[in-house]
Amino acid sequence: MPEPKRYLILAEGKSADPHYGKTARGIIRYASHPVVAILDSTRAGEREQGIPVVGTVDAALVFGPTTAVVGVATQGGRFPPAWRELLRSCIAAGLDVENGLHEFISEDPELSELARRHDVELRDLRKPPGGLSVPTGANLEVDATIVLTVGSDCAIGKKTVALELDLEARRRGLESVFVPTGQTGIAIAGWGIAVDAVVADFLAGAAERLVVEGAERGGRLLFVEGQGSIVHPMYSGVTLGLVHGSAPHAYVLCHLAGATEIEGCPGHPIPPLPELVELYERISLPRRPAKVACIALNTAPLQSDDEAREAIAAVSRETGLPTDDPVRFGAAHLLDSVLARPYAATR
Amino acid sequence: MPEPKRYLILAEGKSADPHYGKTARGIIRYASHPVVAILDSTRAGEREQGIPVVGTVDAALVFGPTTAVVGVATQGGRFPPAWRELLRSCIAAGLDVENGLHEFISEDPELSELARRHDVELRDLRKPPGGLSVPTGANLEVDATIVLTVGSDCAIGKKTVALELDLEARRRGLESVFVPTGQTGIAIAGWGIAVDAVVADFLAGAAERLVVEGAERGGRLLFVEGQGSIVHPMYSGVTLGLVHGSAPHAYVLCHLAGATEIEGCPGHPIPPLPELVELYERISLPRRPAKVACIALNTAPLQSDDEAREAIAAVSRETGLPTDDPVRFGAAHLLDSVLARPYAATR
Repeated sequence: MPEPKRYLILAEGKSADPHYGKTARGIIRYASHPVVAILDSTRAGEREQGIPVVGTVDAALVFGPTTAVVGVATQGGRFPPAWRELLRSCIAAGLDVENGLHEFISEDPELSELARRHDVELRDLRKPPGGLSVPTGANLEVDATIVLTVGSDCAIGKKTVALELDLEARRRGLESVFVPTGQTGIAIAGWGIAVDAVVADFLAGAAERLVVEGAERGGRLLFVEGQGSIVHPMYSGVTLGLVHGSAPHAYVLCHLAGATEIEGCPGHPIPPLPELVELYERISLPRRPAKVACIALNTAPLQSDDEAREAIAAVSRETGLPTDDPVRFGAAHLLDSVLARPYAATR
Repeated sequence: MPEPKRYLILAEGKSADPHYGKTARGIIRYASHPVVAILDSTRAGEREQGIPVVGTVDAALVFGPTTAVVGVATQGGRFPPAWRELLRSCIAAGLDVENGLHEFISEDPELSELARRHDVELRDLRKPPGGLSVPTGANLEVDATIVLTVGSDCAIGKKTVALELDLEARRRGLESVFVPTGQTGIAIAGWGIAVDAVVADFLAGAAERLVVEGAERGGRLLFVEGQGSIVHPMYSGVTLGLVHGSAPHAYVLCHLAGATEIEGCPGHPIPPLPELVELYERISLPRRPAKVACIALNTAPLQSDDEAREAIAAVSRETGLPTDDPVRFGAAHLLDSVLARPYAATR
């Protein structure tokens, strides 16, 4: 299992901005390693969710960080140029750096040389790993229960649902690992592969590598971040490669309350949920037939908790499956339904 | 007009292997330029379909080749390292090289420099074009009937069936175009995109571009070369991206007589054909529901024509669909069944 990390989140000038803070907040809420400080000189001395905000790298060192994380998501993923000095300070202070942006710090000659001298690691989380190939069958040998979040569309909460289920499982003392398959998930977890960025032929191979690594990281229960949708006219190939490569024992089907059409694709309907459940089950590997364990309904469009509960009850009646909104009402109910089945029998 | 090509197929150590010879045999049978020799030192002195097999590049030169083709398809598409010497010899002998593997010879500094010195061209057939993106919806506006060959497995004849149907349609005077989606099809037709080599996110976008170009090339009837299988544990993502991006009106389902398991993937069953028919139909774009028009049964494993006819009749009874082997008995029957439906209604 990897060394325990203690994060310093670099959020200079950004930590108050809800848009830029998405990755930072994800790390604070979901990462399995603690965040010991947040660096933002515009808010030095404050606290965010109990975590001290500091103004300089030096001021952060008293909290014992091991790893600085670039915790912003800028438009287009480029580095704010003023950050170079900040990165130099982190490296000089002996901190590893994890970067989720498109610009790779490991390919920067000056920062690489500085990192070499200070014996720290620069990790570009979005850089696809070398040596990808097709699956070897190791996905079917992983000694863990694999749960994949799938959906009726993109951007409806598949990553968040996987993170909430993983968090709830770890709260219960289970050896659970969140398996990241996209850039934000990778930044939150500090590892992973953005599967939509690999060569199409190696999609399933990349997904296989991720579940193998999830088990190596100590997971007996893996919550794999889903991508796209099997019925999405643009991204369904990524979805199916991930479905077959990660070889899940069970799905959690995510849906946005009230949605009937693929977002941004007018005229492309979302099939009724019972059909979608059956389609995901039918399309699973014949060698590893997976069932939808439950429905995660994103009720964010609904104002009141009462409306949300009604929508959840309606989907549960329609599909005959346990249904809940794990963000609004907690992940306990959905985790119970995931754990209710004896998956070992399907290995 | 470019010089007519004369192919030397590089099949070192592979030309007797039915799996690895797929690319070589496709070129021999369908390319509009002749194959003058096959290089395989393990079979030097033999003939394959009348074409001499030679042991060295020097021995091939007497047959006047202009272009060496890497005629193997290895698992995952990697270059056998011993082939570098062979490629050097071809380039030094003044031959252009066409390469269908994932490893791009045009990006190899040593081979590129050698090619420059000998004034030969290195063409990587799988190198994706620039400017790919997600589909725009143009696939649904193409003024042509789009037919996609799909299958129960890889390497069972999806490309061949599309080529045979296209040839038969053109014989009947129809404005038909074969749409190549893999390296062999590209080598045969002289255009196309190897969809398995594009970034996963752009799979459907690449497929869309191909059907748009097929119509621009004069096709009112497009036979799109299928890839992989929806139930293949390695390549299903490519299959589904192609299914949704090419937006077919109809499928021709290809199957190898007697096959019950995915080749090279022990323990991965092929579902019964009626289930597979339903699965392809269910997984088609809700906006463009496609039906399986007929079954193309590859009866190559069966010795006699009588056995083949029996197997065809059995599959037809099992599926309730017109069934034939277009290689063994001609493509007329299958083309009739493809043309029988009024596809325009589904646009």
